[in-house]
Amino acid sequence: MTRSVTILGATGSVGEQTLDLIKREPEAWQVEALTANCSAPELAQMAKDCGAKLAVVGDESCLPPLREALAGTDIETAGGQAALIEAAQRPVDMTVAAIVGCAGLAPVMAAVERGGSLALANKEALVSAGEILMSAAAKHGATLLPTDSEHNAIFQCLAGNDIDEVRSITLTASGGPLRTWSTEQLAEATPAEAVAHPNWSMGAKISVDSATMFNKGLELIEAYYLFPVGLDKIRIVVHPQSVIHSMVEYRDGSTLAQLGPSDMRVPIASCLAYPARMETPMAPLDLAAIGTLSFEAPDEERFPATRLARQAAAAGGAMPATLNAANEVAVEAFLDGQIGFSRISAIVEEIMASCDHAAPLTSLEDVLALDAEMRARTRALVEI
Amino acid sequence: MTRSVTILGATGSVGEQTLDLIKREPEAWQVEALTANCSAPELAQMAKDCGAKLAVVGDESCLPPLREALAGTDIETAGGQAALIEAAQRPVDMTVAAIVGCAGLAPVMAAVERGGSLALANKEALVSAGEILMSAAAKHGATLLPTDSEHNAIFQCLAGNDIDEVRSITLTASGGPLRTWSTEQLAEATPAEAVAHPNWSMGAKISVDSATMFNKGLELIEAYYLFPVGLDKIRIVVHPQSVIHSMVEYRDGSTLAQLGPSDMRVPIASCLAYPARMETPMAPLDLAAIGTLSFEAPDEERFPATRLARQAAAAGGAMPATLNAANEVAVEAFLDGQIGFSRISAIVEEIMASCDHAAPLTSLEDVLALDAEMRARTRALVEI
Repeated sequence: MTRSVTILGATGSVGEQTLDLIKREPEAWQVEALTANCSAPELAQMAKDCGAKLAVVGDESCLPPLREALAGTDIETAGGQAALIEAAQRPVDMTVAAIVGCAGLAPVMAAVERGGSLALANKEALVSAGEILMSAAAKHGATLLPTDSEHNAIFQCLAGNDIDEVRSITLTASGGPLRTWSTEQLAEATPAEAVAHPNWSMGAKISVDSATMFNKGLELIEAYYLFPVGLDKIRIVVHPQSVIHSMVEYRDGSTLAQLGPSDMRVPIASCLAYPARMETPMAPLDLAAIGTLSFEAPDEERFPATRLARQAAAAGGAMPATLNAANEVAVEAFLDGQIGFSRISAIVEEIMASCDHAAPLTSLEDVLALDAEMRARTRALVEI
Repeated sequence: MTRSVTILGATGSVGEQTLDLIKREPEAWQVEALTANCSAPELAQMAKDCGAKLAVVGDESCLPPLREALAGTDIETAGGQAALIEAAQRPVDMTVAAIVGCAGLAPVMAAVERGGSLALANKEALVSAGEILMSAAAKHGATLLPTDSEHNAIFQCLAGNDIDEVRSITLTASGGPLRTWSTEQLAEATPAEAVAHPNWSMGAKISVDSATMFNKGLELIEAYYLFPVGLDKIRIVVHPQSVIHSMVEYRDGSTLAQLGPSDMRVPIASCLAYPARMETPMAPLDLAAIGTLSFEAPDEERFPATRLARQAAAAGGAMPATLNAANEVAVEAFLDGQIGFSRISAIVEEIMASCDHAAPLTSLEDVLALDAEMRARTRALVEI
């Protein structure tokens, strides 16, 4: 049985890994549409390789080179934001939403409003627009399959169980490369030190988020919207080996955990094949070879990010989007050498304290406007 | 909604813990029947405490004291093997099969032949009569819910998934109290040393089985019959902390594990409430407080039991029952000071090598006859 799939954000890391999996089972998949922001030659090559019907660039100025690269093929081309939305609206069995950042919000919402199954890799959709997204998913009967390794782990641990039976959800955190550093050392941490993640190979922004624990804070907010168990039931434990990806404890004292390699193809495959499974080229888990799994409580004195994220989730409304916007600008400033490592969380806390946006966010326009406002406010604070 | 339950073997450890859970939710349960071998005063008290309709002793000579103890109540009484079978045949929502040893075979089979849900704690039914039991369960549409912590963990990790997607099943083993002993030290191990289990409080026989790893060998055979993935896909890893109770790896590289306290009430509760969950008085799992989970490969040179069990499962027919009978007699002889610790597995191997019973076991009578024959043969070997 062939399943149809659209990949929004095909040229990013999650998009590439999705295509890697799909190409291993070419008879099982029909690729409807691939999209990218620009990257025309790469997108064109991908579309040819997997036999996509449609290739779309969000940046209309990249359409001519895309057309040129796909000349002589049957592959349709299109460009611009409206074309992205149209691609997301086409009926498919599975949409992989892998556009990074706020650019992904409108396409994600378009796919959600169509109903159907959505593998969700765009963090902003849940962090900044979580209330809007989840109510749209409920309204339109969309199935949200989280592709983040932690949320995918939780999703798997909930299979066959009723969420009302959950006693707690525990997100595991590697603790990042600076886990054992003192407050004084953290103040002096350089970008090179902060991006040296021990387990996952990731971009600079998310690597810094791992070092500050904002990555786990953002995941806490995502989990809060994805899994309605209440914020007080969502916990974090530091687990440096990142073998256990997250856990769910039930009221009978059973805890289910999902374990696996630090390879995004595992959670992506879990989404693609849901509710079945598909083959991935992973070596079997060998705990005897790994030897030891260790765990410790997070230290919110040295790493305030998870405390701030919990505050943001509890406040709701504009606060999660504010945290996210402030953090993105602060991380950029840190990577540019403008501020020290410890200033990242301090700046986020200051911007959150200044957040005077009392009305709830009710539309994507609200979210985007708030995001822009808070970014500008953070930039101003950084440049003082 | 009240559910009806019968407990076969109510005065044993699993029976007592089942009643402990049921008494916490008296409005949720109606106890149909409680059985014991004898223990009349204890059984009578239990029946009164939980409002059972029927109390049965397998040993008919214990019926008069049971009648006396329940005089003036509405609780029916009965005695003898036929009465045990009749109790197991009464229609209930859940039967807990917790009789220890081969005495449990016939009542288990009676409950299975009635169809319905059966929480299975009797090891012999699966080890010695696995083929007979599983084909009867399939024929009569009975749902077997394993109460052993390892098999219950696997059962939970399979929820919502298709067993055809399983890449492997891993049973965890504590390794027992003699895990780090050398071959020379093992030869000198005393009964007191062998029964000092680090994690679980259990009887002497099963504690010795944990020290020899025959407990894990028997569980390997049970898993082989319960979960039809093929013997080559069932693995064992030594995990001294016994926090992870077992694991299932799927073909996409996801491994699901069940974790929890070393308290039988967790797997029993999982069976009782299946497919929902029920409350148990367990403290939340605190991995940060536990700190470290460790894993190592089993050493089948020092502990040949799992190798022998794998051979027995592969051979099928009479071999698993032969292993079980030989092991029980050898453990008794060890506890009585007749043989050394290392002789237990050597004797089992010798009896297995001598097993000339070519025909498959097709009835419980076959199983009981073979069991008696192999016990006699093992006793003769022990006494040489």
